[in-house]
Amino acid sequence: MSDELKADGQGRSPRLWTGDFYNEGVNAHAGLFDKLGEECGVFGVFGHSEAASLSYYGLHALQHRGQESAGICVADGTEFNYHRGMGLVKEVFNNDNLQTLTGTASIGHVRYSTSGESKLANAQPLVFKYREGDLAIATNGNLTNAPEIKSELEKMGSIFQTTSDTEVVAHLIARSKHDDIVSAVKEALLKVEGAYAFLIMAQGKLIAARDPHGLRPFVAGRLGTAWLFASESCAFDATGGAYYRDVEPGELLVLDMKTGRVTEDRFSPIKQRAVCAMEYIYFARPDSDVDAVNIHSARKRMGRQLAMEAFVDADVVTGVPDSSISAAIGFAEQTGIPYELGLIKNRYTGRTFIQPSQELREQGVKMKLSAVRSIVDGKRVVMIDDSIVRGTTSLRIVNLLREAGAKEVHVRISSPPFANPCFYGIDTPSRTELIAAVKSVEEIRQAINADSLYFLSKEGLLSAIGQTNSEATRGYCTACFDNRYPTVVPDEAALGCGCD
Amino acid sequence: MSDELKADGQGRSPRLWTGDFYNEGVNAHAGLFDKLGEECGVFGVFGHSEAASLSYYGLHALQHRGQESAGICVADGTEFNYHRGMGLVKEVFNNDNLQTLTGTASIGHVRYSTSGESKLANAQPLVFKYREGDLAIATNGNLTNAPEIKSELEKMGSIFQTTSDTEVVAHLIARSKHDDIVSAVKEALLKVEGAYAFLIMAQGKLIAARDPHGLRPFVAGRLGTAWLFASESCAFDATGGAYYRDVEPGELLVLDMKTGRVTEDRFSPIKQRAVCAMEYIYFARPDSDVDAVNIHSARKRMGRQLAMEAFVDADVVTGVPDSSISAAIGFAEQTGIPYELGLIKNRYTGRTFIQPSQELREQGVKMKLSAVRSIVDGKRVVMIDDSIVRGTTSLRIVNLLREAGAKEVHVRISSPPFANPCFYGIDTPSRTELIAAVKSVEEIRQAINADSLYFLSKEGLLSAIGQTNSEATRGYCTACFDNRYPTVVPDEAALGCGCD
Amino acid sequence: MSDELKADGQGRSPRLWTGDFYNEGVNAHAGLFDKLGEECGVFGVFGHSEAASLSYYGLHALQHRGQESAGICVADGTEFNYHRGMGLVKEVFNNDNLQTLTGTASIGHVRYSTSGESKLANAQPLVFKYREGDLAIATNGNLTNAPEIKSELEKMGSIFQTTSDTEVVAHLIARSKHDDIVSAVKEALLKVEGAYAFLIMAQGKLIAARDPHGLRPFVAGRLGTAWLFASESCAFDATGGAYYRDVEPGELLVLDMKTGRVTEDRFSPIKQRAVCAMEYIYFARPDSDVDAVNIHSARKRMGRQLAMEAFVDADVVTGVPDSSISAAIGFAEQTGIPYELGLIKNRYTGRTFIQPSQELREQGVKMKLSAVRSIVDGKRVVMIDDSIVRGTTSLRIVNLLREAGAKEVHVRISSPPFANPCFYGIDTPSRTELIAAVKSVEEIRQAINADSLYFLSKEGLLSAIGQTNSEATRGYCTACFDNRYPTVVPDEAALGCGCD
Amino acid sequence: MSDELKADGQGRSPRLWTGDFYNEGVNAHAGLFDKLGEECGVFGVFGHSEAASLSYYGLHALQHRGQESAGICVADGTEFNYHRGMGLVKEVFNNDNLQTLTGTASIGHVRYSTSGESKLANAQPLVFKYREGDLAIATNGNLTNAPEIKSELEKMGSIFQTTSDTEVVAHLIARSKHDDIVSAVKEALLKVEGAYAFLIMAQGKLIAARDPHGLRPFVAGRLGTAWLFASESCAFDATGGAYYRDVEPGELLVLDMKTGRVTEDRFSPIKQRAVCAMEYIYFARPDSDVDAVNIHSARKRMGRQLAMEAFVDADVVTGVPDSSISAAIGFAEQTGIPYELGLIKNRYTGRTFIQPSQELREQGVKMKLSAVRSIVDGKRVVMIDDSIVRGTTSLRIVNLLREAGAKEVHVRISSPPFANPCFYGIDTPSRTELIAAVKSVEEIRQAINADSLYFLSKEGLLSAIGQTNSEATRGYCTACFDNRYPTVVPDEAALGCGCD
Repeated sequence: MSDELKADGQGRSPRLWTGDFYNEGVNAHAGLFDKLGEECGVFGVFGHSEAASLSYYGLHALQHRGQESAGICVADGTEFNYHRGMGLVKEVFNNDNLQTLTGTASIGHVRYSTSGESKLANAQPLVFKYREGDLAIATNGNLTNAPEIKSELEKMGSIFQTTSDTEVVAHLIARSKHDDIVSAVKEALLKVEGAYAFLIMAQGKLIAARDPHGLRPFVAGRLGTAWLFASESCAFDATGGAYYRDVEPGELLVLDMKTGRVTEDRFSPIKQRAVCAMEYIYFARPDSDVDAVNIHSARKRMGRQLAMEAFVDADVVTGVPDSSISAAIGFAEQTGIPYELGLIKNRYTGRTFIQPSQELREQGVKMKLSAVRSIVDGKRVVMIDDSIVRGTTSLRIVNLLREAGAKEVHVRISSPPFANPCFYGIDTPSRTELIAAVKSVEEIRQAINADSLYFLSKEGLLSAIGQTNSEATRGYCTACFDNRYPTVVPDEAALGCGCD
Repeated sequence: MSDELKADGQGRSPRLWTGDFYNEGVNAHAGLFDKLGEECGVFGVFGHSEAASLSYYGLHALQHRGQESAGICVADGTEFNYHRGMGLVKEVFNNDNLQTLTGTASIGHVRYSTSGESKLANAQPLVFKYREGDLAIATNGNLTNAPEIKSELEKMGSIFQTTSDTEVVAHLIARSKHDDIVSAVKEALLKVEGAYAFLIMAQGKLIAARDPHGLRPFVAGRLGTAWLFASESCAFDATGGAYYRDVEPGELLVLDMKTGRVTEDRFSPIKQRAVCAMEYIYFARPDSDVDAVNIHSARKRMGRQLAMEAFVDADVVTGVPDSSISAAIGFAEQTGIPYELGLIKNRYTGRTFIQPSQELREQGVKMKLSAVRSIVDGKRVVMIDDSIVRGTTSLRIVNLLREAGAKEVHVRISSPPFANPCFYGIDTPSRTELIAAVKSVEEIRQAINADSLYFLSKEGLLSAIGQTNSEATRGYCTACFDNRYPTVVPDEAALGCGCD
Repeated sequence: MSDELKADGQGRSPRLWTGDFYNEGVNAHAGLFDKLGEECGVFGVFGHSEAASLSYYGLHALQHRGQESAGICVADGTEFNYHRGMGLVKEVFNNDNLQTLTGTASIGHVRYSTSGESKLANAQPLVFKYREGDLAIATNGNLTNAPEIKSELEKMGSIFQTTSDTEVVAHLIARSKHDDIVSAVKEALLKVEGAYAFLIMAQGKLIAARDPHGLRPFVAGRLGTAWLFASESCAFDATGGAYYRDVEPGELLVLDMKTGRVTEDRFSPIKQRAVCAMEYIYFARPDSDVDAVNIHSARKRMGRQLAMEAFVDADVVTGVPDSSISAAIGFAEQTGIPYELGLIKNRYTGRTFIQPSQELREQGVKMKLSAVRSIVDGKRVVMIDDSIVRGTTSLRIVNLLREAGAKEVHVRISSPPFANPCFYGIDTPSRTELIAAVKSVEEIRQAINADSLYFLSKEGLLSAIGQTNSEATRGYCTACFDNRYPTVVPDEAALGCGCD
Repeated sequence: MSDELKADGQGRSPRLWTGDFYNEGVNAHAGLFDKLGEECGVFGVFGHSEAASLSYYGLHALQHRGQESAGICVADGTEFNYHRGMGLVKEVFNNDNLQTLTGTASIGHVRYSTSGESKLANAQPLVFKYREGDLAIATNGNLTNAPEIKSELEKMGSIFQTTSDTEVVAHLIARSKHDDIVSAVKEALLKVEGAYAFLIMAQGKLIAARDPHGLRPFVAGRLGTAWLFASESCAFDATGGAYYRDVEPGELLVLDMKTGRVTEDRFSPIKQRAVCAMEYIYFARPDSDVDAVNIHSARKRMGRQLAMEAFVDADVVTGVPDSSISAAIGFAEQTGIPYELGLIKNRYTGRTFIQPSQELREQGVKMKLSAVRSIVDGKRVVMIDDSIVRGTTSLRIVNLLREAGAKEVHVRISSPPFANPCFYGIDTPSRTELIAAVKSVEEIRQAINADSLYFLSKEGLLSAIGQTNSEATRGYCTACFDNRYPTVVPDEAALGCGCD
């Protein structure tokens, strides 16, 4: 056992939590919960008479990637019809508005946003008119050089209605020397840098493009003769379709509505593949495959690996729901320590909850997460979580377990210390707020009131994700752990967030 | 009595109405009701700590000018906050979103739209970012050369997110050689033609501008030290303010948020004054004054004039609610024939009504308008209406009265025949759908099943509007009656609508 | 001119209003507006395959009689289906719930309530199960001896779920010695006293009954072979039906669903006819006929009579909208003084309005009613209103007119002084709050800041209502004016309100 | 391996599922999903100044026991305030209506209902007026002799507004010879038979009572000096309180609002304890303790026991979410076969979903449950479920797994065959619809298209629930498995459902 794992045994300040943390209410902000901000999700359909309805079900399956707004834009040959709104897919769409979305091709979007600005204008897909007609764009990702390009465009007299990087790309397309949409998109994408999965419709074409490093996931599927595109494969299962292949980094797939033909093209040679490791650790749905690796299985392997790297004897293993359950089961399987539901999430929480009064919070009203006394009372508990961002959540969960009687709480994290901000579409706090950027593991252990703490090694992580795949053709972005960004990144001081 | 007024006495086809007309329901379209489409309304505040709340009440008073969407944009010195939504002012705004709209200057808008396109994107005020910062614009009116300008801009790479003329002006401002907003707005307005009342906010200034002919109404008011701007003066009464003066044709009022100063400026010399006559006849609220003439009183004078021009002996006078009641009372006062409620409007109608089934419609279910049998049965009825557009509504109302037992129905219209489309912000059908453009008065009489029909003369109309005012400084646009447009108008064939 | 009409000329305290009165907002209470509380409305259908839909349109036409809740209960032979909810008819019903209401007979209700108690439980029709099956009841009116009966029933072990008199009648029916519903209803009605229009469904029968004095209006209509029942005839017009005859005082109409037959029966001999005079003055819709007298025409005659009884020279006549417009037009017609829109109501007011802040109220934000400066400025105004209850509203309207510049304000009321509470279903304040019970006319004139004040004489009122009808067979309840109640009334001290 | 476990190997009809099953939509009925209907939940507070808010959080934690309606009734000494509505706790209550619920004692309810009748009237707590004042009642359970008592009461003239057994008890209390509420409740409870947890408020007292067999769970907790009552202990955790003890079978706890005292009383001697076994298997939340046994742990033991009774070699173990996950983990732990997420539930499903079109259903649109191809493709799968009711769901899930490529599907059920209807508050189909009542295990295996099938033995079940507890003082109702009902039960033919 490494030094980091030793409990100090004394001086552990009790810092018992009073339960006020998980009661999220209307304006809950993911950051408040010390979780990484979720990203966005895109879903496209080509060649199906019920394109809008399929998008509804597909976006619903991607709802975990964004709950702020949802939108669908459909092309029926002559014109675009679209609807966007704030809220969940099921709140934004109803039979009435879905029925107006007739057409055989569509692009859809669920958005997570961190900005406090007027939000509906930022809901995607964005739809524009330009000299060649209608143009619709939906993106998951973040362009690292968007501010510079925007500034250039404004100097030339461009006006912006959103704060979204996507509008930058629309301007680049409209100002392109090329009238033909494929050439214009290629020209635009060569000017931008960053992480993205783009779905674009214009001139009777639907275009899918992924950044040259493949930082953001993007998969293509089939449903009969129709084509589907999605941020994650779980959306194909939901619509009755099947995974076909990944959209390759730097690739541009062009689907022509008149001919029905698909053209495989490129706007950039493939660069060092760098799929976001946090998709495996935290973001993606457990039933999705990202680059052909099932997420649940990868997480279980992370848990097993964690057990091998940092075994600790205990009475029960428990995971922080929902994203750490898979890893906790893996840890339990590897160690033989029983997996139990020591922490339980109330599945009815939502945005419309009434906030408890100060008095009730102090008395311990809990709505989102509870520790189960009859499971943990008097027990040595291994608590598996996927990451520690600011450390505040971890402290509170440890305290929840202690209040419920846990004798020892050993925290095992299924990822390396998260010490560097993400510039590729994940909402992270500034570097100074990242506990792993400013504290040692032992200091973190003290800060979260744990008896021991261990982070999965980067090697262990990569092995857990990739063990069933050939290493030759793949690679992961682990910049948040090792500060090695696959692209040039902006000056942090100038950084806002940038999820689209 | 002229020939036109003779009833044919025979051969009048009964064409009795089955009641399916007034049941408007969710998607009621003004055109369906053979009424002219309402326009839009603007309301601005400068120098009041509750600018957004005042806008709420002011826009509510202008609600009759647009029910499709509403929006308010507020400036607080450092940034803009805005909220827009589909529906009535009271549906779009609530305490929560109003409270986010902090600032001392604001521009607001209620919109009536005829377009079938995705509507929320068109809700005003439109808000943009350009090289000098935030830019917000709200308009009532229509630019007759917007399509040409838009086409030019698109060739230069502009993209449009709305179908609104207002966005054209935003592009012109952003592409201006002038960095200073006043100069940029002047440059932009000199390029556009048409009818408009503009409220613009940028660079710490609120700007109000009215077209050089004064086609659309636009008034300035005061509330303590604050300034108010509105399409109609009734909005000042609603907010506790008072009418101060008209914004003059071609005038540009600039209010500076830093200094609090108001500068009276011009972007154009005044041209032949041409205030829209239909505002007096139909659009404006009876308690508003347009160019210092009270609307209700003007309408009563139209009714009196109508009685003098085309008296007919009868038992009761009735008006089509709501806009023709004033004229009907005037007609009754002049003739001594009693004014009665022969037609009644159900004040609870609204957009959420359930459509009656075909069977119930055939049985006569009526929700919007009823004829009162005990008033009209066995009587000779004079029915006053403000205009006839397609003629279908008039036929149905005449038939309603006949079904309720009216012995004779004499129709008197408080305006001349509406025979030419409007290009200045009023939604009219194409010329071929205007019954007065294709039929004689006698043919119209037959088409609407009336015993006699008379339209107020243009001279009578002008006298009724203007009798208490000096003629020297004023003039009205009567192009819809006499085809004499005060500006160059577009080729009709290319015409879409154009309310903003 | 009588003494009462003289203006005191001095000492008139300005008491200018600050605008806080008409801003009703969410919890507006009719009493707050110094208007009599509206009553309730009932609507029944028998023998029509779309009974529920007809009820929807019929209740909508009766919406002015109650906006708190709405409900429909339909019988389809084997069982009852019903839906009730808080709000307007159009808010309570939608296509989904209407479609569940299948059956050919129905009773419906719109409710106005004064009680602060949990309100949905009181929404009608009330539906019960008793030994003979289903029982549904809807009522307009008030039972003066309900408290005594209720107390008796509770002693015998009855439990009550509502505070409504209607539940009392249900208990009486269920505890009747008679199994047959007609006999049981007769037995129950002989025990109760008061004013009512009952619609009852049970045992395959629909029963309509009106109190022996005919205090509350109740009319029968036909639509093809179907029967309709309603509180006012305007509901027949709305559904395509026609007035057939009144339900007579003391009458019991029994419609049998199996045979389709109608039986005319009585539960009581007719007593002195005493139709509520306030229905003519204020409650009923102008296009309704109550006991064969058209309401609008009766009101105009009240206005003419008022002019004859208390002429005053003036420049304009104006009416307080909506209920006093007819009387104002009558006054204008009789005197030749022009009728003008000196007061205007904003038709978009509703329950969801945001309350103005204290600051804005003080500055004069008005949403419900405005005085039109250009009409009344510098003018002598005759202001017609239908009644004065507490006097507070009248004061505020007079002040509104004065603030808009009226030189003199002469108030004419189209009813005698309202000095006694109603026990028959109209929500009135206690006697001590009725200004006419505690002040002379001159004192009231001072209290409302008028230059002169006159109330229509009782004789004038009766003549105006009844002049076209034979006096022999009719009579009106004028207890609120003359304290002569047609039935025994309860001890006032024990009195709650009692609208059902 | 027993005969029952053999796969037939041939002739297995593919019966592949087309995906139309899990798309629940608005009117989803639990029965449709071949699951047992959930029951209801009650929550009471005594002696806390925020009784209503605590109830809100407590009922929210019990939401899994009923999603149809929710209600809270609060006593503040002088009167009751209550609010009830259709929908989830968070939909029914908001800050506005919660704030009206002032008082220190409250009873609340979440309801699951099977009836097609107008549902709001049945929402609990029911509130009545009777001779002694207000009376409020909330129940979880079912009275087996309610129909007989109801019929008796109706003969005596009682009327019913609900179809709920609870109203029967209210009538019994109101008709009791005893004026004092405790005596009246005891008299009433001695007349009824069945399963129940009652919370009653009247005469300044809150009363908690549990049926003499303890069929339904009912626990008491403390929060500081306040008392809490709940159907499950998870509601105490959610409100910051702690489990104190069970309400004993036949016990009556009386809490007096004036004195604050708690009196432990009995209305019946304890009979054979018979706690519902299905609470352990399926209904209760995994973090609840029922009669001091943690649910999750009990389920894991059922899974371990199942593995011991019917091991089968396989590649993965998966559970049907959510209720079978615990048992699946137990099975995996016991056997060493890895537990994987072979089936995934989309956590955003809800009542407002748009139904897929027939075409999309046929193409396989799935919203509620998906099989994860990358987990099960080519694998031998052990699928753990908690029960089989009609068999239709099981067939569909097996087919989902097969469509996703599962080579073998071995079904293990963590309860004995469910062959007898429940009369104690659980909504079950009639006996003829229970597949285990009409088919052998082998026939069921064929019907659900499984390779093998095994049901946990009753002995194994009891051992799994009770292994850590002394058998002497406990016992379970297993009537649904063995047809041995602890009370007299009604004639099945006459049986409706009966959840309250």
